[in-house]
Amino acid sequence: MARREALLKAAEKVIGEKGFSAASIADITREAGTALGTFYIYFPTKEAVFHELVLEMGHATRAAVTQAIDGAPDRLAAEKNGLRAFLQFVAARPALYRIVEEARFVDPEAYRGYFTTFARAYATRLRAAAEAGEIAHGDQEVRAWALMGVAKTLGDRFVLWEEKPDLDHVVDSAFALIRDGLGPKP
Amino acid sequence: MARREALLKAAEKVIGEKGFSAASIADITREAGTALGTFYIYFPTKEAVFHELVLEMGHATRAAVTQAIDGAPDRLAAEKNGLRAFLQFVAARPALYRIVEEARFVDPEAYRGYFTTFARAYATRLRAAAEAGEIAHGDQEVRAWALMGVAKTLGDRFVLWEEKPDLDHVVDSAFALIRDGLGPKP
Repeated sequence: MARREALLKAAEKVIGEKGFSAASIADITREAGTALGTFYIYFPTKEAVFHELVLEMGHATRAAVTQAIDGAPDRLAAEKNGLRAFLQFVAARPALYRIVEEARFVDPEAYRGYFTTFARAYATRLRAAAEAGEIAHGDQEVRAWALMGVAKTLGDRFVLWEEKPDLDHVVDSAFALIRDGLGPKP
Repeated sequence: MARREALLKAAEKVIGEKGFSAASIADITREAGTALGTFYIYFPTKEAVFHELVLEMGHATRAAVTQAIDGAPDRLAAEKNGLRAFLQFVAARPALYRIVEEARFVDPEAYRGYFTTFARAYATRLRAAAEAGEIAHGDQEVRAWALMGVAKTLGDRFVLWEEKPDLDHVVDSAFALIRDGLGPKP
């Protein structure tokens, strides 16, 4: 299993940097320090390792966000903690973030699956929070996707494209918008 | 110029459907109904036509959004109109939307340029609106990117992935969030 882990880690780095087409299995095994043939003990194709990385991004982001929102006193606090956790995740594993975005083209079903699974759980949580009076009522499915869009695009602009991301400032600014909206305050 | 336009239109369709790598110049000229050599009168490479399509998406979305917000009574109305116009644009030209997303990998500078140009103008408008008391104060650059993220992700989920998008419902639901935020209403 250690070799399988090493291959996945190498694939994340190599495919994240070079992109799916340019990254070869030889690049991956070189990075992992294994023989070329070892790859095929664990994965039938480059597509298969790519697919597994998309699934891993799904598990890992959900785990990171769930852990961050656990114990938040209410849904608004959970939103803020969840956004911060997601951006920290992008900062920690930029290659994995890129791989998920490339899945839009390389593995469209996995791409949809990744976001749909996340959105479903998110909308369920928002609905429960609206019932509990912690957030406003509304179409929580649309809201879940809208809020995922906020996180994703802030991850692009203020994490991937920045040398030294100022996550606290971005989270505070975005959270003010998420909580209160754009409307003028009295 | 008519042939150049026909080639661009064909490239939008073919690259949008097949993706950049799989789409060949022969596919594009076949779709355009021109000889293969005609392509090279207008574009040196497949990369060049791709680049031009990303620029065109920039011009076309800015024009569509600007037209939609022109004459809006205030910034909040402009937000709603702009969001609707963007989603209508995605519905009308899904291939172009896909091409811009593929630019993340094929032409990263054009990708950044597309969003950065849009965000800059957006933030300037938000700042003016905050000065005029039409929207709340805050970091309008972060807000511009957050709001672009909302539009982009709703375009994915509720336009590209839907047979019959219900744009009015999506716009109304998202706009309620954008205007008022998630916070519980008294």
